Amino acid sequence: MEFTLEEIAQLLGGEVKGDGKAKVNTIAKIEDAASGSISFLSNPKYENYIYSTNASAVIVKRTFEPKESLKTSLILVDDPYTSFTTILEAYQRTLSLLKVGREEPNFIGNNAAIGENAYIGAFAYIGVNSKIGNNVKIYPHCYIGDNVKIGDNTIIYPGVKIYSNCELGHHVTIHAGTVIGSDGFGFAPQPDGTYKTIPQVGNVIIGNHVDIGANTVIDCATMGSTIIEDGVKLDNLIQIAHNVRVGKNTVIAAQAGISGSTQIGDNCIIAGQVGIIGHIKIANKTTIAAQAGIGRTITEENTTLLGSPAIEKLDFLKSFALYRKLPNLQKRIEELEEKIINLSRI
Amino acid sequence: MEFTLEEIAQLLGGEVKGDGKAKVNTIAKIEDAASGSISFLSNPKYENYIYSTNASAVIVKRTFEPKESLKTSLILVDDPYTSFTTILEAYQRTLSLLKVGREEPNFIGNNAAIGENAYIGAFAYIGVNSKIGNNVKIYPHCYIGDNVKIGDNTIIYPGVKIYSNCELGHHVTIHAGTVIGSDGFGFAPQPDGTYKTIPQVGNVIIGNHVDIGANTVIDCATMGSTIIEDGVKLDNLIQIAHNVRVGKNTVIAAQAGISGSTQIGDNCIIAGQVGIIGHIKIANKTTIAAQAGIGRTITEENTTLLGSPAIEKLDFLKSFALYRKLPNLQKRIEELEEKIINLSRI
Amino acid sequence: MEFTLEEIAQLLGGEVKGDGKAKVNTIAKIEDAASGSISFLSNPKYENYIYSTNASAVIVKRTFEPKESLKTSLILVDDPYTSFTTILEAYQRTLSLLKVGREEPNFIGNNAAIGENAYIGAFAYIGVNSKIGNNVKIYPHCYIGDNVKIGDNTIIYPGVKIYSNCELGHHVTIHAGTVIGSDGFGFAPQPDGTYKTIPQVGNVIIGNHVDIGANTVIDCATMGSTIIEDGVKLDNLIQIAHNVRVGKNTVIAAQAGISGSTQIGDNCIIAGQVGIIGHIKIANKTTIAAQAGIGRTITEENTTLLGSPAIEKLDFLKSFALYRKLPNLQKRIEELEEKIINLSRI
Repeated sequence: MEFTLEEIAQLLGGEVKGDGKAKVNTIAKIEDAASGSISFLSNPKYENYIYSTNASAVIVKRTFEPKESLKTSLILVDDPYTSFTTILEAYQRTLSLLKVGREEPNFIGNNAAIGENAYIGAFAYIGVNSKIGNNVKIYPHCYIGDNVKIGDNTIIYPGVKIYSNCELGHHVTIHAGTVIGSDGFGFAPQPDGTYKTIPQVGNVIIGNHVDIGANTVIDCATMGSTIIEDGVKLDNLIQIAHNVRVGKNTVIAAQAGISGSTQIGDNCIIAGQVGIIGHIKIANKTTIAAQAGIGRTITEENTTLLGSPAIEKLDFLKSFALYRKLPNLQKRIEELEEKIINLSRI
Repeated sequence: MEFTLEEIAQLLGGEVKGDGKAKVNTIAKIEDAASGSISFLSNPKYENYIYSTNASAVIVKRTFEPKESLKTSLILVDDPYTSFTTILEAYQRTLSLLKVGREEPNFIGNNAAIGENAYIGAFAYIGVNSKIGNNVKIYPHCYIGDNVKIGDNTIIYPGVKIYSNCELGHHVTIHAGTVIGSDGFGFAPQPDGTYKTIPQVGNVIIGNHVDIGANTVIDCATMGSTIIEDGVKLDNLIQIAHNVRVGKNTVIAAQAGISGSTQIGDNCIIAGQVGIIGHIKIANKTTIAAQAGIGRTITEENTTLLGSPAIEKLDFLKSFALYRKLPNLQKRIEELEEKIINLSRI
Repeated sequence: MEFTLEEIAQLLGGEVKGDGKAKVNTIAKIEDAASGSISFLSNPKYENYIYSTNASAVIVKRTFEPKESLKTSLILVDDPYTSFTTILEAYQRTLSLLKVGREEPNFIGNNAAIGENAYIGAFAYIGVNSKIGNNVKIYPHCYIGDNVKIGDNTIIYPGVKIYSNCELGHHVTIHAGTVIGSDGFGFAPQPDGTYKTIPQVGNVIIGNHVDIGANTVIDCATMGSTIIEDGVKLDNLIQIAHNVRVGKNTVIAAQAGISGSTQIGDNCIIAGQVGIIGHIKIANKTTIAAQAGIGRTITEENTTLLGSPAIEKLDFLKSFALYRKLPNLQKRIEELEEKIINLSRI
């Protein structure tokens, strides 16, 4: 897969300064780039690298004026970072488009329907009555249960397990090892100290343009649906319990956990290793810092929370600063006690 | 899969009020129910919904007296919640019973034995000498190593990996992506700063009626066995290290981690994201709150612990309340210091 | 698989005291050992067990003088613990060597090359152009993408997923369900509140003698490489984000998470459930206690950090001790306030 600099300039609406027929076949950071690769310069801090880079071409701002001689060709554009992102996308799309058709062996259940232009990897399993949209890629070792619906242009990476009756929208991406629709954690305590399993018969519904990382788990609802709304971005190793709803465009970082029946608002930002208790609501646009523990409903939008149990940011910063100074506070109390004794003796 | 209301009433020892020949084919919450579904009313708070629900039937207490006219049929029982659970179970059992027999391709090692009425999904792998009980369901992409024993009525969901020599009891359920028997994390530091791997040759033994969530990991013992006793319930993404023992009927929520050789008592409740250090003992009936960190043996039963490092509940609540008031405490110390100076000047 | 005591003594450079022709076929702890097993006595605390053990042989120090009569044979060595480790390794190597050859069905892409003496389990998938070294074991359900390189003597346990273009060194071990090379979590916020996915086109490079636990995730770099250096040991359920570098011989325990672009030094020890923020550096030989949260660069070597946000060990211990005594500090402030009032009244 090679492109000439002219082809790239055309894609970006840019202009080549150098040999337009030169070819590049990979993408690299300006400081690491080998010959044959294309890179970019956006942050002026990195300008030094352009004079020594081995990249065959560097995407730069139209206004860029080299201060020394250059070995590399340039592609002049309005916004190098955005242009570079466009190239990354084109590169990835090209790679990804290579995967089409069915590898053998695979298992397709009765009455399952698969749209046009799909990729079904070897050892993929698609259960009975499942409906797979157009341009969907199902990588090897994926398990798609019975009666599952998957929208168009969705990518399911290797080893993802989707339980029966779940529904995924369009343009969803799920990374390897993630589990969608496993049983919610529901057990009724019995008088003899044992627990009786509460059957979980609901499903998971995932909206459009949702991205989910690797080895994350989203449990099915006890009844009804666990819901991930449009535009949600979930990182790796996240726990989403039964009957949770995650509002649209909310972003959740790795290893965070949301307990059962909690409703997360829209456009929230939840950092890594956060824990959120069950049966509460988190207002839209809430920001929760890493490792925080949320034990109560947050009603006011635009709140930022820190700590475990979490409190509002400003309060946390004040209290934590004094926590570090506790030895000093204790010393001052001791001094006061001594002075009081001395004063009392007068 | 359809049932008449009469069939359901018979299953529950209840009584139909309405058309006993009417059929339902799914289960739903009273506020979400569509025509063709059955629901229940247990909590009086939700009584409003019964007058507007589209459910074809609602299970209610025998003593229920409607205050308005009803569109839905009723099934009268002693305890609607328990009855509803019974229906969920029947529903799930019916779904689950549909899976019997062997899908192709699968891999069955030499001398492996599989009991009656089993389901072996496509791409399942069963190693040499492994013994699988009756009525066991092994979903697609499961790996069962060599010399593994699995008891009757156990369900292994897709993509579970069970290393060689592990043993599972009867009525065990393991959800997708969970790993049983991976190597314990044991490395001996060497003088040159490298680590030498300590071979892990033990196994994992899991008792009866144990439920395990998705993408959880239970390491094998260095020697001997990591043991999960009868009736234990483990959620998703949990870490159980080598040589741990989890006592019977203990419940552990998602993303908690138990370090090596620690012994957890019976009937403990361990909340989400808890961390427990290695080589300690936790007494029976200990309750550990979410995100707590346990660094010492707990000898007294019925203790509740919070915080990291965890302390007893009442102590935690007092200290944390004052932590939030630290700015106030500091201000009071400043005022005292000022007053002392003033007094000293007198 | 049986060995005579003479064979074992020869392997260890030791001496049999008892029947050298006696055979053992398994390994056990001295207190649990059944007939036919071999055990060891290193810690004098456990000497009692040697007089009652059912082990057929026990490895002991050359200087060991029994105080009572023994049922078991002895193997005399210089260092029983090291000798026992040698046996464990021999035992495991023997077990492991049994797996050679290719089980069917498997999927080998065009132009993939597999070295000598490899094990390719059933349902393993190896993508196009991938190069697998000698003596490599790829267990069932592994996915090796396209253009992957795997060094000699590496073991990939069941269900591991390695994305395209990743590179693994020699003597690497990866446990079940781990994902290498999934997309980094990178999204650019858009004016309408949605996020645009930033394509991730880098890879993961793993050095030699690296051990990785089960269900861990290592994301690929946005560009360039996420790097795990030689001798690193990673436990289960760990998150390593895009563009992270983990220095050689660093050990990371279960459920820890390292955010994007952070550089961890050499010979660090990072305990369970630790969280480390992105874009920082951690000096060599840093020790981070369980559940700590690291939010800033650590420049000084040999630092030990505790808490969230983490502070230096001694500071943490002082502050936490006083945190527990906050009710007492408050009381002392109240008493001072009262005394001041009384003094002021004089």
